[in-house]
Amino acid sequence: MTGGAPRAPLPGAEFIEWIRREGERRYHDHHRYHVLMHDGKLTKLQLQQWVLNRYYYQTRIPIKDAIIVSKSEDPAFRRMWIHRIQDHDAEDGGLELWLRLAEGVGLDRDEVRSCRSVLPGVRFACDGYVELVRERSLVEAVASSLTEFFAPDLMQKRVLAWERHYPWVSRDMLEYFRSRVPRARRDSEEAIDYVVRHALSHELQERCVAALIRKTEVLWHLLDCVYAAYIEPGWGPGGARA
Amino acid sequence: MTGGAPRAPLPGAEFIEWIRREGERRYHDHHRYHVLMHDGKLTKLQLQQWVLNRYYYQTRIPIKDAIIVSKSEDPAFRRMWIHRIQDHDAEDGGLELWLRLAEGVGLDRDEVRSCRSVLPGVRFACDGYVELVRERSLVEAVASSLTEFFAPDLMQKRVLAWERHYPWVSRDMLEYFRSRVPRARRDSEEAIDYVVRHALSHELQERCVAALIRKTEVLWHLLDCVYAAYIEPGWGPGGARA
Repeated sequence: MTGGAPRAPLPGAEFIEWIRREGERRYHDHHRYHVLMHDGKLTKLQLQQWVLNRYYYQTRIPIKDAIIVSKSEDPAFRRMWIHRIQDHDAEDGGLELWLRLAEGVGLDRDEVRSCRSVLPGVRFACDGYVELVRERSLVEAVASSLTEFFAPDLMQKRVLAWERHYPWVSRDMLEYFRSRVPRARRDSEEAIDYVVRHALSHELQERCVAALIRKTEVLWHLLDCVYAAYIEPGWGPGGARA
Repeated sequence: MTGGAPRAPLPGAEFIEWIRREGERRYHDHHRYHVLMHDGKLTKLQLQQWVLNRYYYQTRIPIKDAIIVSKSEDPAFRRMWIHRIQDHDAEDGGLELWLRLAEGVGLDRDEVRSCRSVLPGVRFACDGYVELVRERSLVEAVASSLTEFFAPDLMQKRVLAWERHYPWVSRDMLEYFRSRVPRARRDSEEAIDYVVRHALSHELQERCVAALIRKTEVLWHLLDCVYAAYIEPGWGPGGARA
C-alpha cells in the first residue's frame, strides 16, 4: 500500500528481542489482580473465583494445541507439539492438577469442571484465543503461544507468594505451578525456534507479533473480568447488585 | 440423562413469554452505561467511545446475518432474511448511518471504520457473537437475534435522551436510531415466527433460550468493557495508567 520495496525481515536475534519486548510489557503479571494475589490481598472468594474462571482457559489449551497440530503437514513438528496436549490431558496432567488446586482452595471439583459459573467475558476471551489459532497461519498460531516465555518467572513468584500468604492452601496443591516452570521453558524454546525459522518476511514477523499481542489481550481480559466481578462488583444483568 | 420421557414442548404463546422474560431481564437497557447515557451524564469522550466501540458490533451484524442466510436450505427464508444484510450495507444503510453518527459526535470517520481502537474485550464479545451464529443450528442462530424484541423501546428512549442531553449532536445524526424502530419491530416479528414454528421440542426451545441469553451477554459485556475503560479507567497493560 505504501509503495516501495517490502521491508527486509529482521535477523533472528532482533526478531526475538522484538517479540520479547512486545510480549513482556503486555504480560498479565502486571495486572492488578495478580498484584493483589501476590501481595496476599485476595480474599478466599477472590482466589477461588480466579481459580474457577482460569480453569476455563486451561480447558482451551489442549483444544488450541490440537488445532495447531492439525495445521502442520510435518510429522516432526507434530511429534514435537503433541506432548503439549498430553501434558494437559494425562491422568495427572495439567487439567487434573488444576482441579486439585480448585479443591485446595475449597471449590467443588465438579462445579469447576462444569464451567457453568465462568464469567461471560472470560468465556469470550478464551474462545477468542481458540478462534485466533484456528483462523491464522501455523506460524502465527505458534507465535501466540509465546506468552510462555514469561510464564516461568510468574509461576515461581506465585508459588512463593501462595506459600507465604495463603497457608491454608496445602503446598501439594500448588503442583500445577511448579510443573509449569520447566515445561513452559522447554515449550517456549521450541516455539521461538519454530517461529524464527518460519517467519521469513517482515510482514510475517509483524503478523507473529500481532498474534502474540492479541494473546496477551486474552490473558489480560480474563483478569479484567474477574476483577470487575469480584473486586469491584457493581452491576450485573438486571441492574445494581445487592 | 435424567431418564423418563422428554418434556413436551411449550405451546407457542408460552414459549414466546419465556423468551421475552429471559431476554428482557438481561437486556442491556439496564446497564449502567446506558443509564448514564440516558440521564445525560456521559462526557463527550465517553459518548464517543461508546459510538466507536459499538461500531465494531455494527460491523458484525451483516456478517452474522450472511452466516444465517448460508445455513438455510429454504429460498423463502433466505429471501426474508437477506434484507437485513442490505439494511446495513446499503449506501445509506445502517453502517453508513453509524459512521455519520460517529462524525456527529466528533469522531473521525476513517478512524472509526478502521476499528483499530476497539477495546480487546469488545472485540472478543462481538467475535463471540459471530461464532455463536456459526456454530449453532439455524433456529438457535435466529433465536439469538431476538434481542431486537426490546430494541424499539430503547431506540425511542435514546433519541429523546440525546436530543435533550446532548444537543451538540445534530438531530440528523440520530437517524440510525430512528430507522431501527420499525425495522427492529419487523425483524423481531419475522424471527419469533420462525423460531416458534421450528423449535418443536422442549430441548430445542431450551437451546433457543440459551442462545438468546448468550447474545444478551455479548451486548452486556460490550458496555462492561467501555465502562471499565472510560468511566473507571484504572490499569492497562503495563500497570497503572497515568
